Amino acid sequence: MKHQSINLHEKLAGFTETWSPRIVAELNDYQIKVARLEGDFVWHKHDETDELFLCLHGKMAIELRDGVVHLAEGELYVVPRGIEHRPRAAEECHVLIVEPRGVINTGDAVSKLTAAGDRWI
Amino acid sequence: MKHQSINLHEKLAGFTETWSPRIVAELNDYQIKVARLEGDFVWHKHDETDELFLCLHGKMAIELRDGVVHLAEGELYVVPRGIEHRPRAAEECHVLIVEPRGVINTGDAVSKLTAAGDRWI
Repeated sequence: MKHQSINLHEKLAGFTETWSPRIVAELNDYQIKVARLEGDFVWHKHDETDELFLCLHGKMAIELRDGVVHLAEGELYVVPRGIEHRPRAAEECHVLIVEPRGVINTGDAVSKLTAAGDRWI
Repeated sequence: MKHQSINLHEKLAGFTETWSPRIVAELNDYQIKVARLEGDFVWHKHDETDELFLCLHGKMAIELRDGVVHLAEGELYVVPRGIEHRPRAAEECHVLIVEPRGVINTGDAVSKLTAAGDRWI
């Protein structure tokens, strides 16, 4: 077909790595990504941009220095730029992420969890 | 609570009008909106921006001049800037829309379906 929708469930079924966002679409200079989360991520921040998380499946939390945001399926949260945060998920959780092209998943905290930033699926 | 997620289902339960997107969050200079769609919208385009539709509930289609994109729950499509399109939904459908702040729902085709562009819920 010439024009085709993007099925997020099918995209997520195409990889198994956690904390490794995959790009599924672009919107101007923004990227739409899906990721599998499980366990605790690293504390980090993005000084240059806000970051949107939409929970697609399961449950997750985003720890902030002064609180925590809980996300279940169909819930979203925008982490403001410059705010330290740590995503975590007790059990595997699937999320949609929206952020500008070129954002690194670990922000200012480069570590073994830093993922390649340009992986499409 | 100091920090709170945004529940899309609850937001959609807060209004009944169709073709009247409501802003639920901002991401930098982009807005995240929810809308109820039913029936045929108008043909229009946005010369200055792409537009993302993510189907949250039900089914919809986006007619293009050279094809059609069908969206079911969990499927998304990015209409490229400048491309004429007409969303439609045989039965009520709920969608998430992501686009820059200030975009008018009917783009270049101002009509009775043109909605106020700054309605938060």
